[in-house]
Amino acid sequence: MGEFGLIAALTARLTQTDAVLLGPGDDAAVVATPGGRVVATTDVLVEGVHFRRDWSSAYDVGRKAAAASLADVAAMGGVGTALLVGLAAPADLPLQWALDLADGLRDECDLVGAAVVGGDTVAAEQVVVSVTALGAVDRWVTRTGARPGDLVLVAGRLGHSAAGLRLLRQDVTEGPLVDAHRRPQPPYAAGPLLAAAGATAMCDVSDGLVSDLGHLAAGSGVRIDLDSAALHDPDVTLDDVLSGGEDHGLVATVPAAVDGFRVIGRVLEGEGVTLDGEPVEGGWEHWR
Amino acid sequence: MGEFGLIAALTARLTQTDAVLLGPGDDAAVVATPGGRVVATTDVLVEGVHFRRDWSSAYDVGRKAAAASLADVAAMGGVGTALLVGLAAPADLPLQWALDLADGLRDECDLVGAAVVGGDTVAAEQVVVSVTALGAVDRWVTRTGARPGDLVLVAGRLGHSAAGLRLLRQDVTEGPLVDAHRRPQPPYAAGPLLAAAGATAMCDVSDGLVSDLGHLAAGSGVRIDLDSAALHDPDVTLDDVLSGGEDHGLVATVPAAVDGFRVIGRVLEGEGVTLDGEPVEGGWEHWR
Repeated sequence: MGEFGLIAALTARLTQTDAVLLGPGDDAAVVATPGGRVVATTDVLVEGVHFRRDWSSAYDVGRKAAAASLADVAAMGGVGTALLVGLAAPADLPLQWALDLADGLRDECDLVGAAVVGGDTVAAEQVVVSVTALGAVDRWVTRTGARPGDLVLVAGRLGHSAAGLRLLRQDVTEGPLVDAHRRPQPPYAAGPLLAAAGATAMCDVSDGLVSDLGHLAAGSGVRIDLDSAALHDPDVTLDDVLSGGEDHGLVATVPAAVDGFRVIGRVLEGEGVTLDGEPVEGGWEHWR
Repeated sequence: MGEFGLIAALTARLTQTDAVLLGPGDDAAVVATPGGRVVATTDVLVEGVHFRRDWSSAYDVGRKAAAASLADVAAMGGVGTALLVGLAAPADLPLQWALDLADGLRDECDLVGAAVVGGDTVAAEQVVVSVTALGAVDRWVTRTGARPGDLVLVAGRLGHSAAGLRLLRQDVTEGPLVDAHRRPQPPYAAGPLLAAAGATAMCDVSDGLVSDLGHLAAGSGVRIDLDSAALHDPDVTLDDVLSGGEDHGLVATVPAAVDGFRVIGRVLEGEGVTLDGEPVEGGWEHWR
């Protein structure tokens, strides 16, 4: 059907919102940005690295690709408003795969009230899905503000996606952990809520709790000590909790407890991440 | 050096601007958006489709990738403010290639006062560069407002990139046309200028003049008649001018002539694109 036919078919699946001043179909989209600022982030998912077409449906890849970027917006304390999607794919990719991908992107956007407003489709040897999320934010929270004495809070799941991936590698294709790998469920509402509650630092857990908190600790010039008992999860191992990424849970440091959020550690003077006072490592770098 | 080392090395090459409220290094960037709106567009460049590493330096690919998206912002009547870049690349990609790419992205941004504010690096079989440009806009101009009686204006080059690509295929690796292919020079300032001058419709020429004007004509429900004499360019053939893409020139329809811009045709009642009154076709679809 050609590039333009494909774009028309993809665009027809999408829904728009009041924040979209100009949607897909022109050189660029125009999106409302309350407060005169926009949060913006890009994530790239590559077939064989971040997903496998035999393990995840196109719909799930769409959900996951949107979730990865929308979780980054939430981790700043923001709310996603718009997505732009680059799809590089082999010419023999079934049309239905691309349409299902669009459905997944759209439905994940719906969870936060965002819309897919634009994108690009190009030929490539491998499926590469690039998602840029834009968002609105009032008070934004970086990784650099954690202070000794703060508590460390978590929202959302940890280690479920990694455990699900391990099951898929063992040919287990059903169950809640496998579902968690296929379709992360970032705690979107927690981001703005924790920002409003005075979070001093925040990030999403995309590479693994210890790895991502390591960056937060380094950025803030502090040590973070995790409490293994508080991290206990009957569904997964402690190693999954510490080093599993891609669930896109949120971790934040706060001066005082916030109702509804689990305390998993404390901010101390020093550097690095410790578990019950002992050094710990974990996490995954995509680039290797 | 790993993903995080690479990101640090890339980030160190970048310069920021006053519009960047929070730059690279966190979950997301925060960019100022005057007027409470943002123009946003994504373009994806794939090795072997949009560039070849033996024909273009990494620096040139960076310039070209940034230009493709920044030209889309200009084609809305806007000015680019920020870029987010997804880089998918084989693990054996030389580090210097990625650094040179970042330099090219940065220097093209400098032309409009934009900054690279974020991105993502992932492993893939093929180099895929995904660029999202954000921009500020006062009055935005779509493809749908052309009216019979309007003049068609052009800014920038047409057909030079295509002619340069043909030379590269003939093993000619030097000269102004080859340079035009390696590094497009979109007429960035013309976008906001033509918007302020009352342009009724505008787009950039990325796929080819006839193809892109075809979309504008369809979107506006008009016919566009081009004047072959006005399109004459001693450096390239008329076919290059009509069907060559990737120069990222701008075409606009205006109620009256605007000083400094060449009139290349007229908007008439009807549909499609004609040349001296006769039907004409041209242009290139990436997806095939």
